[in-house]
Amino acid sequence: MRTSRFPLFTSKETPADAEIVSHQLMLRAGLIKRLGAGLYTWQPLGLRVMRRVERIVREEMDRINGLEVLMPAVQPAELWRESGRWSLYGPELLRLEDRHERDYCIGPTHEEVITDYLRQELRSYRQLPVTYYQIQTKFRDEIRPRFGVMRAREFVMKDAYSFHLDQDSLETTYRDMHAAYSAIFSRLGLRFRSVGADSGAIGGSVSEEFMVLADSGEDEIASCDQCDYAANTELARSRPAAPAATDPLPAERRSTPGIESVAEQCTLLGLTPGQVIKSVVVMADEAPAVLFVAGDDELNEVKAAHALGAETVRLAEPAEALAATGVPRGFIGPRDLPAGLTQLVDHRAATRVNFSSGANQADGHWINLNWDRDMPLPPTADLRTALAGEGCPRCADGRLEIHRGIEVGHIFQLGTKYSEAMDARVLDEAGDARPLIMGCYGIGVSRVVAAAIEQNHDAHGIRWPAPLAPFDVAIVSIGAERSAAVAEAAERLYADLQAAGLDPLWDDRDARPGVKFADMELIGIPHRVVIGERGLNAGELEYRARDATASEALPLDDAANRLVARIQDGA
Amino acid sequence: MRTSRFPLFTSKETPADAEIVSHQLMLRAGLIKRLGAGLYTWQPLGLRVMRRVERIVREEMDRINGLEVLMPAVQPAELWRESGRWSLYGPELLRLEDRHERDYCIGPTHEEVITDYLRQELRSYRQLPVTYYQIQTKFRDEIRPRFGVMRAREFVMKDAYSFHLDQDSLETTYRDMHAAYSAIFSRLGLRFRSVGADSGAIGGSVSEEFMVLADSGEDEIASCDQCDYAANTELARSRPAAPAATDPLPAERRSTPGIESVAEQCTLLGLTPGQVIKSVVVMADEAPAVLFVAGDDELNEVKAAHALGAETVRLAEPAEALAATGVPRGFIGPRDLPAGLTQLVDHRAATRVNFSSGANQADGHWINLNWDRDMPLPPTADLRTALAGEGCPRCADGRLEIHRGIEVGHIFQLGTKYSEAMDARVLDEAGDARPLIMGCYGIGVSRVVAAAIEQNHDAHGIRWPAPLAPFDVAIVSIGAERSAAVAEAAERLYADLQAAGLDPLWDDRDARPGVKFADMELIGIPHRVVIGERGLNAGELEYRARDATASEALPLDDAANRLVARIQDGA
Repeated sequence: MRTSRFPLFTSKETPADAEIVSHQLMLRAGLIKRLGAGLYTWQPLGLRVMRRVERIVREEMDRINGLEVLMPAVQPAELWRESGRWSLYGPELLRLEDRHERDYCIGPTHEEVITDYLRQELRSYRQLPVTYYQIQTKFRDEIRPRFGVMRAREFVMKDAYSFHLDQDSLETTYRDMHAAYSAIFSRLGLRFRSVGADSGAIGGSVSEEFMVLADSGEDEIASCDQCDYAANTELARSRPAAPAATDPLPAERRSTPGIESVAEQCTLLGLTPGQVIKSVVVMADEAPAVLFVAGDDELNEVKAAHALGAETVRLAEPAEALAATGVPRGFIGPRDLPAGLTQLVDHRAATRVNFSSGANQADGHWINLNWDRDMPLPPTADLRTALAGEGCPRCADGRLEIHRGIEVGHIFQLGTKYSEAMDARVLDEAGDARPLIMGCYGIGVSRVVAAAIEQNHDAHGIRWPAPLAPFDVAIVSIGAERSAAVAEAAERLYADLQAAGLDPLWDDRDARPGVKFADMELIGIPHRVVIGERGLNAGELEYRARDATASEALPLDDAANRLVARIQDGA
Repeated sequence: MRTSRFPLFTSKETPADAEIVSHQLMLRAGLIKRLGAGLYTWQPLGLRVMRRVERIVREEMDRINGLEVLMPAVQPAELWRESGRWSLYGPELLRLEDRHERDYCIGPTHEEVITDYLRQELRSYRQLPVTYYQIQTKFRDEIRPRFGVMRAREFVMKDAYSFHLDQDSLETTYRDMHAAYSAIFSRLGLRFRSVGADSGAIGGSVSEEFMVLADSGEDEIASCDQCDYAANTELARSRPAAPAATDPLPAERRSTPGIESVAEQCTLLGLTPGQVIKSVVVMADEAPAVLFVAGDDELNEVKAAHALGAETVRLAEPAEALAATGVPRGFIGPRDLPAGLTQLVDHRAATRVNFSSGANQADGHWINLNWDRDMPLPPTADLRTALAGEGCPRCADGRLEIHRGIEVGHIFQLGTKYSEAMDARVLDEAGDARPLIMGCYGIGVSRVVAAAIEQNHDAHGIRWPAPLAPFDVAIVSIGAERSAAVAEAAERLYADLQAAGLDPLWDDRDARPGVKFADMELIGIPHRVVIGERGLNAGELEYRARDATASEALPLDDAANRLVARIQDGA
């Protein structure tokens, strides 16, 4: 492609309303254009990137025998009433009426449509398992759309749905899908983690998220530096540290008037936070519980909810804590705690010895408490947030790293939620009608483009991973309008690169070199060749990789071959 | 692909609500599945066909330097208010409100959005001409959706828009687009015509429709059997026949009481319809006019409107005709017609001699009237519908054929309609801001699939043109469950065909041969190979083209090569 036929609508100004760097760069580089709140036109340059994502997604879905379909964007309300989601889904569901005043929505997802399709067509277990997918435009009426295509209202998704007779079959496809997602993000040249969302005490469904790592990510994830363990920090575990081999000391009661925090307690008693155990009163679905966590750890409310079998857990208000325990704030502890209260101890707190804690009386704390000797050890659970540098819970040697990430994919063992609600059944080998077991699997195709930029950019613009770049290589001709030699050399290189199967962008505009260089860096083409008269006189072209700090000379007569070799090596 | 992994949801029953054959066959073959009124899921088999259409469309758009974009389906009402179409467009425009009660529509077309995009980005005539296109899901809220995807509410369009500084440039791109459309429908293997919609007296915009020929088509078109002349029969012309060299006879007035039709007039006076000239009173935008047409011709109201410079032309009611002429119905004629009435004579009627016509008095007709001798010849125009077998108006030897057709494409010189309304301008060489001149160009991508079936089917099902077929060749193995030799031969042929770059469908179901044959014919795969034990014992496979009446034997050891050669030859 030549820029004379492919207008680049680049801009030097950072748009005022673009808060994150991918949004700024997508607008500045002319990848997208805003039409309205959360609505973007994909310009030719941006669409080329999205199509590269789509192609790789499609290839990997086909490889695991996914069958591509295309379902309508506009969906009848009746199906959503059947599944129960017409009333459950919030105002993100864009509802509308047609000319006959029948209710519809623009689909943010397609579980109802695919279940309706297959309950009509699937008859027998012999047709299972089967996986359908589509790459399609969806709509979610975000209350405050922002971050460009990262949280747009209209967006492109790959959504897939699998159908099974039994859980084993679902798990096999789920594993295939996990491998396919890993292949997709690897092939796209992105650094990513798949993050387990353990089923926990609430039980039931299993799911994993795929996160593109980027400092600006909304999610915080812990991952092992050795194996593939990774989890959202809300759920991440770490290897238990060996308890210190310390002899128990005699417990002593100390007067601690007016103490309100662990820090004050440490100062007064001459302790480190690691020698303290905090007693945290929480409301688990509005029932009180006391949780014991080491003073140098943080209570993780998501884990606490799983451990308590509760939907939600929140810190109790002071009045609630007082009503539940009868003890003033700051003085609650495991010894002599009033009976009848639910108690849990974090695993790490359970290994501590000679610790300090509230005495369950105003103005008093214990030091040198020890579990079992001074009070029974309550049930233990993982209640703390894992930290960077701690041991991996899965492998022997790994240490946890904490990264921020952007969710770009989600795989989910759905079970029979939709098939039960919508009566979607097949006959099993014995001739009994059994509800279909389902999985669903999404990739935010348009979001991947933005996430890739969050991960790969610098002060000059985008630095596309090669598989995502809209063009493989930029040819910048300087003065081709005035020099036949430059024009001819550029023309020949352009043709040679195309003949080698590459997609070059020849910037043949009559513009200053600095303008062209800045544009090629902004739009992030991974390789750049400059063709000017001075170089040609020396028999050379000037080459520079987008991520290099200096240029190098390529001999004119071998330039195409060397470029092709370099690009195909991914160098 | 194997049918064991690609479920075929075929059906023998013709769906009751499917009125046309493409709709019936698309449902029966499992190409589409109804979700709601005018809403269809494209099943894997159907989507493979539509993707083939899309690929060819995309290649031809790229070839003429079209730049692909993707615009939102949901469009803000403000833009439609700017263009004036928010109020002009009928209830086909599906309007909706978002959660903040702002008005939107789901776009049936994208002139407003593309014009808004480019009025912000285009600055200079040096960026012109430029053509953008997209392949995208659109919505039109048809009052009575029917005929499956032929007139669905949600459908897939290729829409393109070109932008120019002057009319010459628009016409160049328009011609390129015409050539690209011809290439697309040719490459798809369809019989089609491009049909000019002459600008006529109303003047202004030029457009052409592309029609796939099929007996069930809604439109009737005339085309030359020699050259590329084609036009909707509403507009088609034919070569004037040489007038008969007959000496004028003396005009005579006859008494014809009670005559009401040309047939009665002929019977009473002993004439053929070709010896009569009909006088038709019409209301042209509610003003009366008398049109003279040969008795064996049919008045064409569209041509009459063009000739009279009227928006619409309709036959006058008897009372209107009487009021305008003062002459009772059946007795109006060109001689002694009251003055002050607009009159036009059809070209062919103008060449007639010795004709009969009303005498403008009750119960009287003339015979042997002649123009100029008996009354002045009024202005002449093309007012008749051209008929099959008449001479082509463009070339010397061609004869007109009449076909029915299905509109699948439309190209249009739009001018400045949207750029004026929306103030979309660029600077010309002199630095003056001039409105963009636009063209727009559509292809009904999903409709093409249905039109192809209307054109290519038989009693057994679909007969895909090879470029559209969802699979290139069907392999039907018989008894592979029980015979290792059959399984192995099928496996090898399947692999060999794939290695040759073909897309085979291997029907490996454990089903009766008749069931498999019927399915492969219904879904219309162009080539079929049967592998069974009996054939293998004779060292043969059985081959049959979808459009052949008999099978032939292929030697087992050379079957793959012969098949590949045959398929690649398009044989």
